[in-house]
Amino acid sequence: MTTTTLDATLAAIRPPDADAMAAARELQARLTKPAGSLGALEELSVRLAGLAGTCPPPLPEPAAVAVFAGDHGVHAQGVSPWPQEVTAQMVGNFLAGGAVINAFARQAGASVTVVDVGVAAPVGGPAPAFVDAKVRAGTRDLAVEPALTRAEAVAAVETGIRVAGELVDGGARILLTGDMGIANTTPAAALIAAFTGAAAADVTGRGTGIDDATHAHKTAVVAGALARHAPDPADPVGVLAAVGGLEHAALAGFLLGAAARRVPVVVDGVIAASAALAAAALAPDAVAAMVAGHRSAEPGATVALAHLGLDPLLDLGMRLGEGTGAALALPVVAAAVRVLHEVATFDAAGVSEK
Amino acid sequence: MTTTTLDATLAAIRPPDADAMAAARELQARLTKPAGSLGALEELSVRLAGLAGTCPPPLPEPAAVAVFAGDHGVHAQGVSPWPQEVTAQMVGNFLAGGAVINAFARQAGASVTVVDVGVAAPVGGPAPAFVDAKVRAGTRDLAVEPALTRAEAVAAVETGIRVAGELVDGGARILLTGDMGIANTTPAAALIAAFTGAAAADVTGRGTGIDDATHAHKTAVVAGALARHAPDPADPVGVLAAVGGLEHAALAGFLLGAAARRVPVVVDGVIAASAALAAAALAPDAVAAMVAGHRSAEPGATVALAHLGLDPLLDLGMRLGEGTGAALALPVVAAAVRVLHEVATFDAAGVSEK
Repeated sequence: MTTTTLDATLAAIRPPDADAMAAARELQARLTKPAGSLGALEELSVRLAGLAGTCPPPLPEPAAVAVFAGDHGVHAQGVSPWPQEVTAQMVGNFLAGGAVINAFARQAGASVTVVDVGVAAPVGGPAPAFVDAKVRAGTRDLAVEPALTRAEAVAAVETGIRVAGELVDGGARILLTGDMGIANTTPAAALIAAFTGAAAADVTGRGTGIDDATHAHKTAVVAGALARHAPDPADPVGVLAAVGGLEHAALAGFLLGAAARRVPVVVDGVIAASAALAAAALAPDAVAAMVAGHRSAEPGATVALAHLGLDPLLDLGMRLGEGTGAALALPVVAAAVRVLHEVATFDAAGVSEK
Repeated sequence: MTTTTLDATLAAIRPPDADAMAAARELQARLTKPAGSLGALEELSVRLAGLAGTCPPPLPEPAAVAVFAGDHGVHAQGVSPWPQEVTAQMVGNFLAGGAVINAFARQAGASVTVVDVGVAAPVGGPAPAFVDAKVRAGTRDLAVEPALTRAEAVAAVETGIRVAGELVDGGARILLTGDMGIANTTPAAALIAAFTGAAAADVTGRGTGIDDATHAHKTAVVAGALARHAPDPADPVGVLAAVGGLEHAALAGFLLGAAARRVPVVVDGVIAASAALAAAALAPDAVAAMVAGHRSAEPGATVALAHLGLDPLLDLGMRLGEGTGAALALPVVAAAVRVLHEVATFDAAGVSEK
């Protein structure tokens, strides 16, 4: 695969439309509510108008979650108490509809697509719920060598671009990031440190729940990887290859693909936030398409979102991944847009202004 | 109307069921996700199991919003820049489906019932969307005399109890509080100060958006009312009568009615939070039925929720009222319960544990 898809995608990403944003601000001021009383939803509606280039922007439905799954060579370092086989088992759970993201997506009316971009074990399922795009059977151990070659990283990025495009072609008007990969908070922490300059200790969390000793070891693994590879944030593909993961790279592409299509994409937790840093490093205007769904309990997520200038919609202490925080935030995003479509103006409703 | 309905309702409110709560905790631990990874949703699911007395608790659908509308004699003090006629005009907007709560309720699949418990002007509409329960055409000015008689306060409380009961009888499995009343953040601030002991300056906010001078005046009005009436928090009906509002009293009854029926009720903003303090003062176990939908931008809401021991689900800087924050939180509540119904266990899904 060449970089043609990636280059074309980056070239298609444009800044938000200032006229549409101004129109949304003006419309918000005429609706039957005190100015500013919808708080964060008002500015979100303005951002989405800017992304769409029209006011009101389209209602964000139907919605599509893509869960990118991959395994990690760094699992061998003992950074997670869960066996690696759980990645493949959870792919099976997603395809059977038994995971939390399935329940949340059913409630929100969103589809769930599982993309094997690098699970160590063989996995599979019927299309279109399953996409076989395995770049390799898990990354190499970033503690001892680059996790991926540049070509592998680009292949994963382009997988994410392709999945985003296919979901939009299939009718989706909002995309949601999802991820599955035992040990994947370790590369996420390394990516966040590499792109933001934060220290390993400030971005390395407890993932699925680890004890103090494992947390200290995990932090040392992240710090060691940064020292070994000295990833250069000016070379985003190089950073993804050195210390990333296949699902992280694919999510970066997924975010870029959404931005290129001017479709909003809800960023889930720390894995997606680390991927968002890579996407923003490749195309700063891609951030205009991103909506931070929630503030993950993982400390790196907060560091990454602050670096991107994104305020999360929810803050519920969640740290599951899978796209669950994005799915919970989806109704808030839809409500923000719906206001511009459905709420009466003072004039139309015959309501006096102050 | 006698106090029979109120007394019977208070007598029907029971503590949560510890066995159902233990069963919910045990089930959460067996579901295919790391323990605790759903953050606040897990404890919410446990609380709702305790309320229902069964695990899993019923899915909270269908949902019903009740918007209690009233006017306020204290409006004459210049505490709001909006004309009083806006209360009646917004009732018309609700009944026409043009307000933000209508848009949010449509999205969430919730019904909207507007209850005139004390609008100054004549209002009306077709049942069941409109309930005519006007106790009086607005309260008296709490700055100069008690806002209500005790009988009027009880009548409003019992209206709220009745509306809750009728919505549950009609099939609702979760209730949402809504309110409309120009100047109603002034009595809300007074109620919160009376029940929590907080100073007027710490609970009086800017409502729909007022300037510094009006805010200072409004704070002085609240402080003056507290000094004049010296409301006794051990006499909740007396507090409601002295410094409350008809929609505040009705909302207190609505919350009690939900608790008596063991149906969860989502508390919206500062008006509902002030009413929740009255309800909790009348029946401490009523808090078990309450879910704090969001943290209103009004400072009194945070004081009230802390006093009740409730953590809000959302924090989006909203301050509209109408039930909008409750409606936005509804999918989060539903998701918390849905997890217990639909997510596979480790055993059933064949997923390894750590």
